[in-house]
Amino acid sequence: MAGEKITTRAEDYSQWYLDIVNRAGLSENSAVRGCMVIKPNGYAIWERMQRALDRMFKETGHVNAYFPLFIPKSYLAKEEEMAEGFAKECAVVTHYRLKSVPGKGIEVDPEARLEEELIIRPTSETIIWNTYKNWIQSYRDLPLLINQWANVVRWEMRTRLFLRTAEFLWQEGHTAHATSEEAEEETRRMVEVYKQFAEDYMAMPVLVGPKSEGQKFPGAVYTLCIEAMMQDKKALQAGTSHFLGQNFAKAFDVKFQSAQGKQEFAWATSWGVSTRLIGGLIMTHSDDQGLVLPPRLAPTHVSIVPIGKNDEERKAVVEAAQKLKAAIQALPRYEPIEVKIDTDFDKSPGFRFNEIELKGVPVRVEIGPKDLAQNACVIGRRDIPGKDGKLMGIPLAEAPARIDALLREIQKSLFNRAKAYRDASLHTCDSYAEFQERIEKEGGFFFCHWDGTRETEDKIAAETKATIRCIPFDRPAEPGICMVTGKPSKGRVVLARSY
Amino acid sequence: MAGEKITTRAEDYSQWYLDIVNRAGLSENSAVRGCMVIKPNGYAIWERMQRALDRMFKETGHVNAYFPLFIPKSYLAKEEEMAEGFAKECAVVTHYRLKSVPGKGIEVDPEARLEEELIIRPTSETIIWNTYKNWIQSYRDLPLLINQWANVVRWEMRTRLFLRTAEFLWQEGHTAHATSEEAEEETRRMVEVYKQFAEDYMAMPVLVGPKSEGQKFPGAVYTLCIEAMMQDKKALQAGTSHFLGQNFAKAFDVKFQSAQGKQEFAWATSWGVSTRLIGGLIMTHSDDQGLVLPPRLAPTHVSIVPIGKNDEERKAVVEAAQKLKAAIQALPRYEPIEVKIDTDFDKSPGFRFNEIELKGVPVRVEIGPKDLAQNACVIGRRDIPGKDGKLMGIPLAEAPARIDALLREIQKSLFNRAKAYRDASLHTCDSYAEFQERIEKEGGFFFCHWDGTRETEDKIAAETKATIRCIPFDRPAEPGICMVTGKPSKGRVVLARSY
Repeated sequence: MAGEKITTRAEDYSQWYLDIVNRAGLSENSAVRGCMVIKPNGYAIWERMQRALDRMFKETGHVNAYFPLFIPKSYLAKEEEMAEGFAKECAVVTHYRLKSVPGKGIEVDPEARLEEELIIRPTSETIIWNTYKNWIQSYRDLPLLINQWANVVRWEMRTRLFLRTAEFLWQEGHTAHATSEEAEEETRRMVEVYKQFAEDYMAMPVLVGPKSEGQKFPGAVYTLCIEAMMQDKKALQAGTSHFLGQNFAKAFDVKFQSAQGKQEFAWATSWGVSTRLIGGLIMTHSDDQGLVLPPRLAPTHVSIVPIGKNDEERKAVVEAAQKLKAAIQALPRYEPIEVKIDTDFDKSPGFRFNEIELKGVPVRVEIGPKDLAQNACVIGRRDIPGKDGKLMGIPLAEAPARIDALLREIQKSLFNRAKAYRDASLHTCDSYAEFQERIEKEGGFFFCHWDGTRETEDKIAAETKATIRCIPFDRPAEPGICMVTGKPSKGRVVLARSY
Repeated sequence: MAGEKITTRAEDYSQWYLDIVNRAGLSENSAVRGCMVIKPNGYAIWERMQRALDRMFKETGHVNAYFPLFIPKSYLAKEEEMAEGFAKECAVVTHYRLKSVPGKGIEVDPEARLEEELIIRPTSETIIWNTYKNWIQSYRDLPLLINQWANVVRWEMRTRLFLRTAEFLWQEGHTAHATSEEAEEETRRMVEVYKQFAEDYMAMPVLVGPKSEGQKFPGAVYTLCIEAMMQDKKALQAGTSHFLGQNFAKAFDVKFQSAQGKQEFAWATSWGVSTRLIGGLIMTHSDDQGLVLPPRLAPTHVSIVPIGKNDEERKAVVEAAQKLKAAIQALPRYEPIEVKIDTDFDKSPGFRFNEIELKGVPVRVEIGPKDLAQNACVIGRRDIPGKDGKLMGIPLAEAPARIDALLREIQKSLFNRAKAYRDASLHTCDSYAEFQERIEKEGGFFFCHWDGTRETEDKIAAETKATIRCIPFDRPAEPGICMVTGKPSKGRVVLARSY
């Protein structure tokens, strides 16, 4: 396996993705159908995502808490749309004990049947609003700004590592407010936090806007989302923020006394991003050499590769590498630079470079005996593989500052490249026939007029496999004519095929 | 509720514990039997525990990963002791879909029955070793040093917030090694990490040593543990580290090629601590005024209470409080000091002080108009409630440095106090009659001779409710005579009643 080339994007995009996930050690399918094992290299990316997001949540006034994994079946039924939306993919716990049966191994103990079945949370609105009932009595108890980091289960029939798995890790924010306005502000604030995270950390440009009625979260009044374009021109829904109105407050009877002394139902939001983001990160930046990671989310920023043929040479270059590592790590920096030294001298330099490229380390430093003789090194940037990305003969004393600057540059450059790539596939289209042809041949995001009905939305999906991704905030609504039915349209929506 | 006194330890120790958990906003029972909601104040403590432990795990070479929540039933059966140990408390998933039944709500879809039932992980050795099978081929793949932060479920019939719940949060380390020696070193290293965490962060002294055969983890060759003494003189097992030998490697056929070219089974360890630690923290330090938190795990270190009767006075003291907060936070410090300002002027100063005490904030600063006139403040330490713990007339300019020093002192002082309390209840006892009487009347840890048999262990437990907590490392083994049977004993063990 190691040393072999990965499948190229042109050959087979899906296999390219799986090759990267596999060879970079990010995740793998487990023996349990639909569930993945997140391997150390993949989990390290998730930890960095968590750290950045958690900080952003706290800066916007949120605190973390933890609610039960189990939800009584009857809770799901209390909010009709949610029940409808999630019932078909719920893992159900029916028993609480196993027993040994001589000669037959271990069996479920039929006497330990639960009175009421429990479902594994597919999302936690119901159990949380059932809890909030006891926490909210007065307007003084509001707003309640709570986030949870947790695992959830949605029994998917067709799974794909990171992008769609039966169990995944995520965060879910659940807030309660005294007024509709406040809850709507919160809904918008959090989708903007997601946009900022996607763009500033993941270097992944996104469109922001509401979902259509047909694509919104079951139980929401409306859903705001961030949508990114992958390299195969398909859309990835990367984060959602829901305005839930009073739906859950009514379902779970959560009332508070207002400042005016009236009993009112609380207003709700919920918002989440998941390990799916890792899939988005991979498909935004990676290339045919392997994973490409933006520095702000890379577990390792710099791999130093000392090169030497014999013990004497090796000792000298490793010493130089260690000095350089210490100098880089001594840079005053808000986000410390993580440096590794690769001492796998048994392998050829080419093999070692390939492995580092494959794993997406943003900056590689080579120090061989000739470099050392000149007190210099070679610096390679992962975002520009090959000779074009190499800085030759950089004095070792200057290297730390150069690397620091380079990491910032790579972060920016990856975003700009991804944005240019995406922007080149943003199309405006007014003919359904043209749309049908181009969505098949070119892919991309199409800004089209739509009559606002579920029927038309369903027809487009059935005929083209494209769905309405969002109604983007940053485009002024210009009325027009639906490209499918010719009926009036209030403004363009974004259509794309999606993950 | 607010403002009311909590139950004292002397009145009712169990109720005192529950009162603190409730009134300090740490956790509550959920609607799902045996599962708790960890509330924001409780979760904030867990986050600080996680941060410290995670750093210690990484410093000892471990990385994080994530394995599935679900374990096929047959996996559990592969390791006999483990199956025996956990079968009776397993939540079992039997179906993967619900359906709407008109007029009857939502029901489990009988057609969506799983071919093989899945259990919710009570611990992850089986699913992890089934995965390691593919990761370990050669001695070069070893050691594998992996930790997981996760939720687990053990269907307990009698639960108590934090101490014993059906679902809890924990970390579980799972390592694989080429030799028995290495794995044993790891087992010891990690129990020492737990000891260091318990003593340096939780300020909770612990005994360290192996469990008896009767108390070890199902599937382990032996279990090392840390045992703490709570204020009711009962023991709390606070962390365990297991040497698993080749048990799981054999159960899941995990072989590697050794440096000598032989096929060998890998050697394993596992180790974990859980949200139970929060219960231990509460019961080690808290008093009849409420929660007491050691500074290194306190989410808020300092509460500043400005006091004023009218708007003018309030404006001045709040400004002084803000300046002081900024000055404290500007102190150069590895672990930043978190400061809150309480501006709840509607409540009396006494009420505000009580609330801050109840929540365990280590340091309280009062600034009233008279203090301000002298550019001074009053500093109160939570570990010494009342006048004895008050520093009067501290100049505001000196306050930050004084508070910094005080936080360090409180951390030390809490440990010393807990240790003195525990040491006063370490007894040596050679008569079973005396033991029976004293364990009932005094409680505490009893160092006694035991003949090493399961029968005697079970007899002691049945007759006194005490169990062997550990065989402490730091006491030299001196042979003697079992206090129950008069048979030879290899050395003293620690007996106590426990949580």
